Amino acid sequence: MKALYFDGEQAVYREDYPKPARAEDESLIRILMAAVCSTDREILKGYKPGFTGVMGHEFVGIVEESDDASLVGKRVVGELNAGCGRCLYCRSGREKHCPDRKVIGMDDKDGCFAEYMTLKTRLIHRVPDELPTKTAVFTEPLAAAFEITSQIHIKPDTNVVLLGDGRLSLMIAQVLSLTGTDLTVIGKHPEKLEQFMPFAKTATHTGETYEIVVDATGSESGLHLAKDLVRRQGTIILKSTYAGNASIDMSYFVVNEITVKGSRCGPFEPALRMLAQKKIVLPEIKLFELKDHEQAFSYRGFKAGFRF
Amino acid sequence: MKALYFDGEQAVYREDYPKPARAEDESLIRILMAAVCSTDREILKGYKPGFTGVMGHEFVGIVEESDDASLVGKRVVGELNAGCGRCLYCRSGREKHCPDRKVIGMDDKDGCFAEYMTLKTRLIHRVPDELPTKTAVFTEPLAAAFEITSQIHIKPDTNVVLLGDGRLSLMIAQVLSLTGTDLTVIGKHPEKLEQFMPFAKTATHTGETYEIVVDATGSESGLHLAKDLVRRQGTIILKSTYAGNASIDMSYFVVNEITVKGSRCGPFEPALRMLAQKKIVLPEIKLFELKDHEQAFSYRGFKAGFRF
Repeated sequence: MKALYFDGEQAVYREDYPKPARAEDESLIRILMAAVCSTDREILKGYKPGFTGVMGHEFVGIVEESDDASLVGKRVVGELNAGCGRCLYCRSGREKHCPDRKVIGMDDKDGCFAEYMTLKTRLIHRVPDELPTKTAVFTEPLAAAFEITSQIHIKPDTNVVLLGDGRLSLMIAQVLSLTGTDLTVIGKHPEKLEQFMPFAKTATHTGETYEIVVDATGSESGLHLAKDLVRRQGTIILKSTYAGNASIDMSYFVVNEITVKGSRCGPFEPALRMLAQKKIVLPEIKLFELKDHEQAFSYRGFKAGFRF
Repeated sequence: MKALYFDGEQAVYREDYPKPARAEDESLIRILMAAVCSTDREILKGYKPGFTGVMGHEFVGIVEESDDASLVGKRVVGELNAGCGRCLYCRSGREKHCPDRKVIGMDDKDGCFAEYMTLKTRLIHRVPDELPTKTAVFTEPLAAAFEITSQIHIKPDTNVVLLGDGRLSLMIAQVLSLTGTDLTVIGKHPEKLEQFMPFAKTATHTGETYEIVVDATGSESGLHLAKDLVRRQGTIILKSTYAGNASIDMSYFVVNEITVKGSRCGPFEPALRMLAQKKIVLPEIKLFELKDHEQAFSYRGFKAGFRF
């Protein structure tokens, strides 16, 4: 089958990659569409040393074989992280934090930039019939945005600021705005900030302070700006991962009793519901053939993906 | 009156300091006993540039004059932070975080190392009759320990580790142990760790991980140890203030969804109740005359204080 294979150094397009066989608790999924995430680009830069295999973790597919017969023939999306099932994290509802987890397209498990992929059946979610494939493919990153409202209670009158005007920010902004909050988005790019205007106040800087600051800038500067903007006893949500250490005045966080909370993957079901109900509307994905992966990875618009 | 005055450089014992007059919403308190806190020692090292005045913020006294007649003649303790009453922090129950607050013995307000002190009446708490003055003098630091259980829910079966074997740690350990948790205390000093044995497991290192890590080491190394010991999706409570920046890998906190929470002053009433009920028992305070302040500041035992 066709697959985009990471050989430890670069992405290689192959047409001879063996079609996978499912294990007993897995489903075999025929991929309809897959999307490129920044993490895929990071992998090409060496973010996951030791990983070789098919890349990709955002997809919509059709189940062809499964231990759950009700799924066969259905359109589905799926979670990334398959835990060991035995450790304290797996046994306390934190499978995505299992230290021995396999992660599609990233860690010891082939991903979705291929015609077929296998996935633990328990990680699969059905796509509502009314939700087009081109929209459902945003489920995984949107779930990561919903992780914020899973982690903390944002009241309708809590004042919230979001730092960053990138792709993840656009999803986070829409999720946050669903709480009813009077959201402010701070970014560096006026042309990108325009996309946020239907549901947020936008600015390139602010003189205000906020109860909750969400940092999705992807850089250490975001953390420092967050510290300046957060109110005493307020909360900073960190969505940015970047290489290297940050240097910060921790006593400031103690004296002002500030909470800093890391935030990663989130719940799929609310993401699917809000997409299906058109409560969250995102720009179009730009689709490429798998062999044109270099074009896809260098695409500068909202989101690139592959059709199969 | 007798007072220990900080002139911006050093502590000066005076016998000619003017007795304060109370404002309309204040009480005049005759100090019975006051205790030395690490913060007082930090002030001598330059922690509060710009402050001059009577030092001290931990005390037990008797109200001599007040706008609340029911307090006159009663033994009391009192909170440090008097806010402006008008800002968003004061109006949202966060008076101790008021940016314009006055703080006894620290910030624009004379403290309790003197025969008399004035304090906003709303900051005063009565000492239960059965609670000896020598015990009640621990109320303020113990309240800071109760701030932890005010901030987060520690279930009886949550596993918690406390880093540090100092004075504040001994109070925190007792507060945490009241939740029923199987507490572990990690310290560097076997002789100090002995004090914790009645209510905690003690060790100089651990191979375990914990849902909640409380850092009361007072140093940056505590934060790094906390990062190593905290479980994914766990919480680090920071009780340590120290000068300078900490250098940390923030992506680790994002990927593992760790929460870091600063913690400072806390509620007085639970501290008074638990001391009165003897649920928390602390070592004896060692009392000095105010003129012997140098001996008091250099005392190496559990707690030094002044009698009046």
